[in-house]
Amino acid sequence: MSDGISAARYAERLLRAKAAVAEAEATAMLVGVGPELEWLTGYAAHGGERLNLLVIPAEGPLGYISPRLEAPAALAAPGFADGRLPLHVWDETDDPFLLMPPLVSPREPLRFLVSDGLRAAFVLALQTALPGSGWGLASDVLAPLRRVKDAEEIVLLRAAAQAADRAMERIISGPLVGRTEAEVARDVRDALVEEGHDTAEFAIVASGPNSASPHHEPSQRLIATGEPLLLDIGGRRAGYNSDITRTVWIAAEDGAGPEPGFREIYELTASGQAAARAAVRPGVTFEALDASAREVIAAGGYGDHFIHRLGHGLGLEVHEEPYLVAGNHEVAVAGNTFSCEPGIYLGGRYGVRIEDAMVCTAEGGESLNEAPRELRVVSGR
Amino acid sequence: MSDGISAARYAERLLRAKAAVAEAEATAMLVGVGPELEWLTGYAAHGGERLNLLVIPAEGPLGYISPRLEAPAALAAPGFADGRLPLHVWDETDDPFLLMPPLVSPREPLRFLVSDGLRAAFVLALQTALPGSGWGLASDVLAPLRRVKDAEEIVLLRAAAQAADRAMERIISGPLVGRTEAEVARDVRDALVEEGHDTAEFAIVASGPNSASPHHEPSQRLIATGEPLLLDIGGRRAGYNSDITRTVWIAAEDGAGPEPGFREIYELTASGQAAARAAVRPGVTFEALDASAREVIAAGGYGDHFIHRLGHGLGLEVHEEPYLVAGNHEVAVAGNTFSCEPGIYLGGRYGVRIEDAMVCTAEGGESLNEAPRELRVVSGR
Repeated sequence: MSDGISAARYAERLLRAKAAVAEAEATAMLVGVGPELEWLTGYAAHGGERLNLLVIPAEGPLGYISPRLEAPAALAAPGFADGRLPLHVWDETDDPFLLMPPLVSPREPLRFLVSDGLRAAFVLALQTALPGSGWGLASDVLAPLRRVKDAEEIVLLRAAAQAADRAMERIISGPLVGRTEAEVARDVRDALVEEGHDTAEFAIVASGPNSASPHHEPSQRLIATGEPLLLDIGGRRAGYNSDITRTVWIAAEDGAGPEPGFREIYELTASGQAAARAAVRPGVTFEALDASAREVIAAGGYGDHFIHRLGHGLGLEVHEEPYLVAGNHEVAVAGNTFSCEPGIYLGGRYGVRIEDAMVCTAEGGESLNEAPRELRVVSGR
Repeated sequence: MSDGISAARYAERLLRAKAAVAEAEATAMLVGVGPELEWLTGYAAHGGERLNLLVIPAEGPLGYISPRLEAPAALAAPGFADGRLPLHVWDETDDPFLLMPPLVSPREPLRFLVSDGLRAAFVLALQTALPGSGWGLASDVLAPLRRVKDAEEIVLLRAAAQAADRAMERIISGPLVGRTEAEVARDVRDALVEEGHDTAEFAIVASGPNSASPHHEPSQRLIATGEPLLLDIGGRRAGYNSDITRTVWIAAEDGAGPEPGFREIYELTASGQAAARAAVRPGVTFEALDASAREVIAAGGYGDHFIHRLGHGLGLEVHEEPYLVAGNHEVAVAGNTFSCEPGIYLGGRYGVRIEDAMVCTAEGGESLNEAPRELRVVSGR
């Protein structure tokens, strides 16, 4: 639920989506539970095996297919205000897919755009209910709208980022040594909520050699002295996500800092990240942003160890368009928000990643996160 | 991650699934991130926009399509032990769907079974990569296997249910009055984890008139005296879910208990729930279980206010097969686990729901939850 967005804004988004369906010469957009539905209506519907479907036809009235027991929740969402989205309610023993055909104008050929996350079970049932139709993705027309954040959304993203900054600081300066990754991950989740998120969404806590696995799951490994700790954490606040990564070194028993090999890859990652942040401006391609960090890291001799894209869009989803990856020739515009997160991973030894959430403004890139980026050596006590 | 299930068990499940694909005369089963993948491999993969796909062909070797940065996590899962599932790794700039066609034997006609939760974006890309193929759901062959829990799974489900019992008791006996539903929902999530769950999954906290909305989202409403509170809570422990509902009455300032109208629907709900629990045995149809509670409630005059099915299967998913609903003629067998949760909802006034997780044994039904079911009047202080 997006508590910072007005009902009028949702009404405007629904109108823009309907116009985009017509422009794409599609019959209708079919939006299931997920971020597209939240963006269009503010309704964070209950997912699962019961069909919820927002139907946005190119012509004729909008409609919303809802299980009866979820109807009150739907009607309470801002996008449903003023009867803008008439409900088509189904009961437990009904076949909800029978509600579909009457909701779409019978013009030929039929072509539907479904939300990217719609469950296969629903996709196949819709294909059966509307045989002979063409099928495409709603993101083709929605993502270009969603990826340009308005001022209200950027306020919400900044508030989430700052809450994540505070949570990161608490974890880094707290007790780490002798505790398991899983225990610290639980602390991360508590800190994310206590610092202002509605929910904690993820907490990668990767110690020592585990930091070389970009998507490591927190394990029962005990965090030790004289090794790095990578923290990639985020949560949702008023619908919008935070996502920050910092990698710190836990001092050895004798107080010694990082070994030279670690310091080398840390500084190289930080330089690559700074180069990419500096390159953000309207008109730059997303693959050029990826390349701006990658070139620095490759020049330092670690290009083969930066094994993922530079970043991903950030908004109602933790990962959404635009993707900062080779081959993406799209250009940044003011209002785009995305992560900037290069990394260097040395399998079996350790890895480094540094990540900030960025917004592209008319004047250039701005980081929504403000947590320090220099290499920190902590006691972990 | 299912810490109670051995690698040998996953190997056996993969073999059974492969045999089922052949028996269904399908070309292959294509399983994305989700509960089917967890059941088959123990791998709780990272969901999202990157393709992860387990390919189980009727003939030839199994394979697993993984993004490179998630490969270490895949290989650490028990189902991948002993090289049983060779990885087909794709890099950030690859098109992973090009990996698909070589993985499936070219026998005509091609027919694929996809996991129910596979994202529409992946379904449509697979349909493009494998044109002219037929498409069905993996659940048609997997659900009959998954719904019969083995002894290890029932141990895990019981442990989760007992943790939920303890969390419920803590919340019911704790401070409620003058706090918001959202605050109490946060307490519920903390209690679920502190009592032994790995993660809290849901916390419906519905006070006063909100208890009449079955899927109410915790709000900023202040919980008051002299009204009911409905708590529907659950979490995951070692991969398996708990799910319990209790409805209590918060005593009035003068200590008075529930008004007669509430007591009436509470007793009727409890009687219906008891009737359904008593009816559980191998051979009974799931619609008959639904009817056994519904008949009691209808005889009491509230049939129109029991607006949802009696229950749903419970395992790696909170909602899975079998569904206890009119029209489901399938019969229970020993090892089925499901919720039993009738409710009566009086819009604008209040509602009652009572839910236990049940297992069908050779001797009949057994509740995995042990929290008291009689109407409790609490001080909420």
